[in-house]
Amino acid sequence: MNARPNHAEPLVLFMPSGKRGRFPKGTTVLDAARQLGVYVESVCGGRATCGRCQIEVQEGHFAKHQISSSKQNISPPGSTEARYAEKRELPPGRRLSCSATIEGDLVIDVPQDAVINAQVVRKDADTRVIERYPAVQLCYVEVEQPDMHKPLGDLDRLKEQLRKEWGYKRLAVDFHLLSDVQNILRQENWAVTAAIHHDDEDDTAHVIALWPGLKNEAYGLACDIGSTTIAMHLVSLLSGRVVASAGAPNPQIRFGEDLMSRVSYVMMNPDGRQAMTRAVQQEVSRLIERVAVEGGVNRTDILDAVFVANPIMHHLFLGIDPTELGGAPFALAVSGAVKTRASDLRLGLNRGARLYMLPCIAGHVGADAAAVTLSEGPDRQDEMMLIVDVGTNAEIVLGNRHRVVAASSPTGPAFEGAEISSGQRAAPGAIERVRIDRETLEPRFRVIGSELWSDDPGFAEAVAETGVTGICGSGIIEAIAEMYLCGIISEDGVVDGALAARTPRIESQGRTFAYLLHEGEPRITVTQNDVRAIQLAKAALYAGIKLLMEKQEVETVDSIRFAGAFGTFIDPMYAMVLGLIPDCELEKVSAVGNAAGTGARMALLNRNHRRGIEATVRRIEKIETALEPKFQEHFVHAMALPNKVDPFPKLSLQVQLPPRKVLAEGGAEAPRRRSREKRIARRRQ
Amino acid sequence: MNARPNHAEPLVLFMPSGKRGRFPKGTTVLDAARQLGVYVESVCGGRATCGRCQIEVQEGHFAKHQISSSKQNISPPGSTEARYAEKRELPPGRRLSCSATIEGDLVIDVPQDAVINAQVVRKDADTRVIERYPAVQLCYVEVEQPDMHKPLGDLDRLKEQLRKEWGYKRLAVDFHLLSDVQNILRQENWAVTAAIHHDDEDDTAHVIALWPGLKNEAYGLACDIGSTTIAMHLVSLLSGRVVASAGAPNPQIRFGEDLMSRVSYVMMNPDGRQAMTRAVQQEVSRLIERVAVEGGVNRTDILDAVFVANPIMHHLFLGIDPTELGGAPFALAVSGAVKTRASDLRLGLNRGARLYMLPCIAGHVGADAAAVTLSEGPDRQDEMMLIVDVGTNAEIVLGNRHRVVAASSPTGPAFEGAEISSGQRAAPGAIERVRIDRETLEPRFRVIGSELWSDDPGFAEAVAETGVTGICGSGIIEAIAEMYLCGIISEDGVVDGALAARTPRIESQGRTFAYLLHEGEPRITVTQNDVRAIQLAKAALYAGIKLLMEKQEVETVDSIRFAGAFGTFIDPMYAMVLGLIPDCELEKVSAVGNAAGTGARMALLNRNHRRGIEATVRRIEKIETALEPKFQEHFVHAMALPNKVDPFPKLSLQVQLPPRKVLAEGGAEAPRRRSREKRIARRRQ
Repeated sequence: MNARPNHAEPLVLFMPSGKRGRFPKGTTVLDAARQLGVYVESVCGGRATCGRCQIEVQEGHFAKHQISSSKQNISPPGSTEARYAEKRELPPGRRLSCSATIEGDLVIDVPQDAVINAQVVRKDADTRVIERYPAVQLCYVEVEQPDMHKPLGDLDRLKEQLRKEWGYKRLAVDFHLLSDVQNILRQENWAVTAAIHHDDEDDTAHVIALWPGLKNEAYGLACDIGSTTIAMHLVSLLSGRVVASAGAPNPQIRFGEDLMSRVSYVMMNPDGRQAMTRAVQQEVSRLIERVAVEGGVNRTDILDAVFVANPIMHHLFLGIDPTELGGAPFALAVSGAVKTRASDLRLGLNRGARLYMLPCIAGHVGADAAAVTLSEGPDRQDEMMLIVDVGTNAEIVLGNRHRVVAASSPTGPAFEGAEISSGQRAAPGAIERVRIDRETLEPRFRVIGSELWSDDPGFAEAVAETGVTGICGSGIIEAIAEMYLCGIISEDGVVDGALAARTPRIESQGRTFAYLLHEGEPRITVTQNDVRAIQLAKAALYAGIKLLMEKQEVETVDSIRFAGAFGTFIDPMYAMVLGLIPDCELEKVSAVGNAAGTGARMALLNRNHRRGIEATVRRIEKIETALEPKFQEHFVHAMALPNKVDPFPKLSLQVQLPPRKVLAEGGAEAPRRRSREKRIARRRQ
Repeated sequence: MNARPNHAEPLVLFMPSGKRGRFPKGTTVLDAARQLGVYVESVCGGRATCGRCQIEVQEGHFAKHQISSSKQNISPPGSTEARYAEKRELPPGRRLSCSATIEGDLVIDVPQDAVINAQVVRKDADTRVIERYPAVQLCYVEVEQPDMHKPLGDLDRLKEQLRKEWGYKRLAVDFHLLSDVQNILRQENWAVTAAIHHDDEDDTAHVIALWPGLKNEAYGLACDIGSTTIAMHLVSLLSGRVVASAGAPNPQIRFGEDLMSRVSYVMMNPDGRQAMTRAVQQEVSRLIERVAVEGGVNRTDILDAVFVANPIMHHLFLGIDPTELGGAPFALAVSGAVKTRASDLRLGLNRGARLYMLPCIAGHVGADAAAVTLSEGPDRQDEMMLIVDVGTNAEIVLGNRHRVVAASSPTGPAFEGAEISSGQRAAPGAIERVRIDRETLEPRFRVIGSELWSDDPGFAEAVAETGVTGICGSGIIEAIAEMYLCGIISEDGVVDGALAARTPRIESQGRTFAYLLHEGEPRITVTQNDVRAIQLAKAALYAGIKLLMEKQEVETVDSIRFAGAFGTFIDPMYAMVLGLIPDCELEKVSAVGNAAGTGARMALLNRNHRRGIEATVRRIEKIETALEPKFQEHFVHAMALPNKVDPFPKLSLQVQLPPRKVLAEGGAEAPRRRSREKRIARRRQ
């Protein structure tokens, strides 16, 4: 359009994309956005009725962009806009870009939260704003009536109108709409809204749903199927808002606690695969019902769904036998993104709803790791970023925009509290924080479900309901790190029996010793075997990281992101004390909560992210630790505890970590620790 | 490849396409064909194992093409080809184009019937050879085994191999294959055959089926769903051969004899549409079973299906309410080609099989008329061709490569024997041929089911089983034409009562007279009302034709094609006598049998025909007779019988029309009248 920009024409800059161009006065802001490829939502196609195309004018001189913007440079609200504002309310400062025209230089802000009908917004949802460009868009058109002189079919005239008004040249239509199209077109005098799904890889567009008249809202799902927990968000495709979230235990747990026992179950039972697939699909469908009810949304208004999962969950969800993933060469049935109809998995969404599953990186590094990579974007920045997602395996991604490498390290389930004598799942009653007095060797701890420390007044009453039941993953890490800092265990991980003389908390257990953390029912001790189990796990994790650092030829990393539930609740300081992760500036270490869920939401809300992560995953160099001779070497070296200065020689303040949410009761997304630095600063006072 | 042809290189000409190019010596014939875009089937991808790529070398000097071809200009059979010929037999003169290389100038014939395993070939199938380029192709590949260093999924390695060997860059995979791919790949040591479906409109390719090892045969269906009869062919997609055919009455007849009564049934009964859709889909599925059994083919080897039908059958088959087609503006729900999965219509083919339904031309001119147009190709030639398909409505297409117009004329059911006093369906016992002696006014006739004339010895015995039950459409036409030629009826269609004096066959019926054709049980007469009914029907048909001739600004047509069962059995001479059709050289008038079925087969076997007919249908000018004031005028003029010289003043020879097949008993395709000229010549002796 503006092949040779006319410098007399106004300059328009769109934020946050930064795209800019010159346009003749009188051009609508919406047209300008479209010409520049800036995505501004619009359902009604410029009729000033849907209100989705809201923008804001930024005022001031923007030196960096050499542009001065003022509200005088946009046309004053005309009658259509006024009519809309009267009927539906337009927030102050907002304009409808389909009506407002360019009259001078402008800096235009495209808000990513154009909420039309006020919705319940969850406080605990990730607050990240995702630039929207959803794969499914709503397009309102007024179709020509049938004409004997031009006997095009109803559907063909609809397609013709979508071509004329929305520029769709090749548009396929889902078969199930053929029997509905006559009725839908005639209900509101040939005005309809079509939902159009875009697949950029195939370069195809499909009409997947139709409504009579103006349909101004549509939803999508972002879902992370973990081995333990399934977490789901219901998101408005038009405003980007999370309208409901829910989590539930993965019902496959009854077939096997961890991944490998589920693979075994498939191998041992002829119907095992089908049973597990049915179980997870049904639970997903139940979760959909929960978020739909919570969000006040009809399931048939859900048009798109993005799923992420580790490779075994990925296969079982899709109905694929995961047996091959149980042994070398760990061959995935499919590694690329999976695109199909939600109805193929009987999810009970709109009949035409689509499903997208992110690509898997390798046999041990799944679509969930791809989603974390999409969320954190190591490949979108210059720093050497380390991403660690610890489960039964640790998925490790290391890289920057030049190169990204990834591996999975066999940490085993110790970090999740398994293989630990008093270990348990993260559930109310589990010890999650531990401090040991450097002098007296007396412990204090906190359990999930209470914010009091064990030596606070009222602790016994606060935990009366659950009791103190065991120790979870983050608890055992802190316990062992504190034991190490107190000298209870040595650098090579031996519990020092000589200390039994100083405190009765050191107990003899045959040839080895244990530390008594809690005298009660049950008694909770940290045994020599517990220390060994954590040593093995942390050595595996560190060896994997080290291997990737060697591949990248770096000695240090610039930033570390802890993904997943374990990462959310582990204290990075203790992780460094124990040597789980390499040294890094503390303010560059962050927990990113359910980054996999965030990545899923990004893929849901912006189709460019789908192509982006598909390309990134193809580009990622996959390192198979089992094939790397140096892995074993690193592993052996990493068994010892690192020689560290005690970072907290005089612990006095209580640490304010975020309260842990109990997944079965509500949302599953862990909050980001935005104020880690502040907390650490406070702790050091 | 040959951007700048090197004139020292051998010249290769492929027939029947006529494509040509120069290639370096040593190029395989298959490679040369591919580079020129000549479709040569090959499943094994040049491994000399499938035998599908057979070609023949034509010998001689081809002056028109300035090329001399000789078998010395192709490499002698090498060891791979010899091995194939030994194992599977190669017909004399045939070569495998993947092994034979170009050594000099060549004229290559690409046979369209490369039969590998001998199949039952129906004698009565249309013998037209259709150049093959099917939408579904089989591609054999040997997939790389899983490799921990390069953790691509099984499916992704398959796609990679299909890209490398077959050039597929963007390949989607049907979801249902995800759960099978592991097993299929491992059964024959990573060798598989993929069936790939191409949609040229969307420019997409999908893997729709997979088999272990080399799969060397696949089938498709071509099916015409008529109001009365459903006719189906099972066709090899690899050889183009029709391996089985079957026909059956349309079970919707129990809901209503003709189209409008079926629409009424839908309007009156809430479940009417569903019941009729289920009935026709089930009957189609039963026919599939019949052709599969007859052809010795597994239903799961059927990968593609093409359907044609009139608009109401089209809608009911697809599950669309046809009510809108019952009244103005006769709006089709969909006019464009319908493409979906056969499983959407529960047809019980291969799970990934596709379905293609030709576009409809207008509310009264359906996908069957489009198929006839595809078969006869008025738009592919210069002559002004008239195509007439007579049913309850007559579909009329008129045109040449410059312009094609089409209309539907409301002939009513008289031509089908309805509304005629002694009329009946074409069934055994129905009078179908009539001759009346010019002097004595005595009739002789033939009935369906016997080849004897009524005055032949043994006639009574021959028809003893059925009796003479009535008169069918072609019979009533001949009867009235003969009555006219004998002067029994006048130009304005009045039965001449004065002739009662000459023969008792002229009977008084109140104010009008009738002609007694057969004295028996029942008595069969041609009444004044019968004559009127045929006059009305023929006037409607002729008025429609005349309207289209006016649109085309022509006074005469160059050729006439009669499509459909009516067209097969009507004698064009009598049609001209009565003025159903405009005058035309008799040798340019032909019956083309089930041209709709032929069109369906063309669309099945060559995907270019799909795009072709879609473009043609868009281009066809649709004339709605109801909106044309001149239609009524033509109609009134066409009521009179034309002033004609009796073409058979001395009838002496028996006419040898092809024996009519009874549809319910076997194949539904009517034979083409290839030897009409000979017969007419004989008749005139």
